[in-house]
Amino acid sequence: MKIAIVGYGNLGRGAETAIARNPDMELAAVFTRRAPASVKLRTPGVPVFALDEIERFKGQIDVLLLCGGSATDLPEMTPALAESFNVVDSFDTHASIPAHFDAVNSAALRGGHTAVISVGWDPGLFSVSRLYAASVLPDGESYTFWGRGVSQGHSDAIRRIDGVADARQYTVPIAQAVEAVRGGENPVLTTRQKHLRECYVVAEEGADRERITREIKTMPNYFADYDTTVTFITQEEMQRDHSALPHGGHVIRCGETSDGVKQTVEFSLKLDSNPEFTAGVLCAYARAACRMAQRGQFGCKTAFDIAPGDLSPFAPEYLRAHML
Amino acid sequence: MKIAIVGYGNLGRGAETAIARNPDMELAAVFTRRAPASVKLRTPGVPVFALDEIERFKGQIDVLLLCGGSATDLPEMTPALAESFNVVDSFDTHASIPAHFDAVNSAALRGGHTAVISVGWDPGLFSVSRLYAASVLPDGESYTFWGRGVSQGHSDAIRRIDGVADARQYTVPIAQAVEAVRGGENPVLTTRQKHLRECYVVAEEGADRERITREIKTMPNYFADYDTTVTFITQEEMQRDHSALPHGGHVIRCGETSDGVKQTVEFSLKLDSNPEFTAGVLCAYARAACRMAQRGQFGCKTAFDIAPGDLSPFAPEYLRAHML
Repeated sequence: MKIAIVGYGNLGRGAETAIARNPDMELAAVFTRRAPASVKLRTPGVPVFALDEIERFKGQIDVLLLCGGSATDLPEMTPALAESFNVVDSFDTHASIPAHFDAVNSAALRGGHTAVISVGWDPGLFSVSRLYAASVLPDGESYTFWGRGVSQGHSDAIRRIDGVADARQYTVPIAQAVEAVRGGENPVLTTRQKHLRECYVVAEEGADRERITREIKTMPNYFADYDTTVTFITQEEMQRDHSALPHGGHVIRCGETSDGVKQTVEFSLKLDSNPEFTAGVLCAYARAACRMAQRGQFGCKTAFDIAPGDLSPFAPEYLRAHML
Repeated sequence: MKIAIVGYGNLGRGAETAIARNPDMELAAVFTRRAPASVKLRTPGVPVFALDEIERFKGQIDVLLLCGGSATDLPEMTPALAESFNVVDSFDTHASIPAHFDAVNSAALRGGHTAVISVGWDPGLFSVSRLYAASVLPDGESYTFWGRGVSQGHSDAIRRIDGVADARQYTVPIAQAVEAVRGGENPVLTTRQKHLRECYVVAEEGADRERITREIKTMPNYFADYDTTVTFITQEEMQRDHSALPHGGHVIRCGETSDGVKQTVEFSLKLDSNPEFTAGVLCAYARAACRMAQRGQFGCKTAFDIAPGDLSPFAPEYLRAHML
């Protein structure tokens, strides 16, 4: 499979790494909105092109991994490219998925391509876990906990505060809440009871740390509804201790199958690198997109529409004999 | 959906319970090899028929849940019934799955039906978890731990020993092994290092307990390769403390996405009742079988061939808006 990466940020670099670990995939090219000569890949011999040249590669690439952001890149990029290419994206603005699906579906059907949207781990593997668990245990409650991991959106929000030079925010699930859910209590949990937020901040010289702390803790939507800790550190400590992008979390469903008979299903991730893992998921769904396109299964698909066997490099006979 | 149960043992009774918790399903009938009048259902108003009458119900039942055993029932029953009905089974003799698949596939294609085999939790949800994890993390190792839970096969093996009145065997994963795997060490584990076996035995009066203990601990395949404990209890204790059929386990895969960057995926079950949970999985796959048959997707399918969305009672639009 010839794969191309569109966008060379954290996720794009993760995709480069992930493709190298999938022997049936070849990184054919990287497309960027930056000056191509300024983009240095880790893989030798792979060309970098300007994104506005991409249409001339139509027919030469099996699947594009779209590695842009959900806020502004993907709502434009995925529909625009799905008309000429099979594509996979990690669009993760949950509330906008139905609109994104419709736009991508029209484009993909028009062009006769397969477009997989919103894969990664949430949405993606966590969604699939919620769906399997709810389908086999209809009578129950599902809970999703995120972390401990870096939230880029929350880190960015802190960086926009006056006097902040750098910041990193960790979302942390609250252990007692996770245990209560695992124990089958199906508790009603407020936002504050599910997660806390740890902030590590490098303040500019002379900045008012009390004001920064107050601005963080009272920021609506981002922090006001949570117990939040703020720790000031140096730029050196930031680089030394907080340069990785770990993440993870748990999807837990507890339900009853008859009175008092409890069944608990849990799916967990512990990730040293969120972008590299997300990129691994994109690669598996790229394989599925390629196969579905070959079968004429065009249009927009999510993880819910894709049979797990299509993600694997192995043939169905092999999977039945060795993995079932 | 009109569902019928074939076989009314532990799993069949679990299926009756599970159908009642799925509002889009109706239990239409139970088929048995026993005298129908001797089978007392929990659900009022549902007829019980002799299995050899089943062909006259062709066209009147959407899906049959085949609740027989894998040793002798299902290898005959599933191919025989897949020609005239959509069926779901929980065939769990891993080594024989390819042959079972072929036999069922021929019959289902001949009759224009959809047959889902080997669903439950292992094979079934655990298989799917192994496949997702291996596909998104190609560079890693997968481990499956079972338990703490009752193994019916091992309990039966103890009951066949001379002087044993009753027995219950629990398979127990060894905590240090599970922790080593979770920690990303990708350890090489012997059979003995992964699980231990706890046996609770009611001895007949005057039976030689030392001999029974020795016979259990040295039994090839079943116990000889494990650390095994044998505890003698009374029949009253057996009924009071060991009449449930709990089970569960973990599928864990740890892999690297780049040098030294570890990612861990885990799927776990903690089940108060193995048969009731397994039956819940059968019901979800019955829904998928029904839909696939309506689309003309005939033949034998496993959990690997079935998109998760087909398991849910909810429409794709709803799932995208609420569960993705």
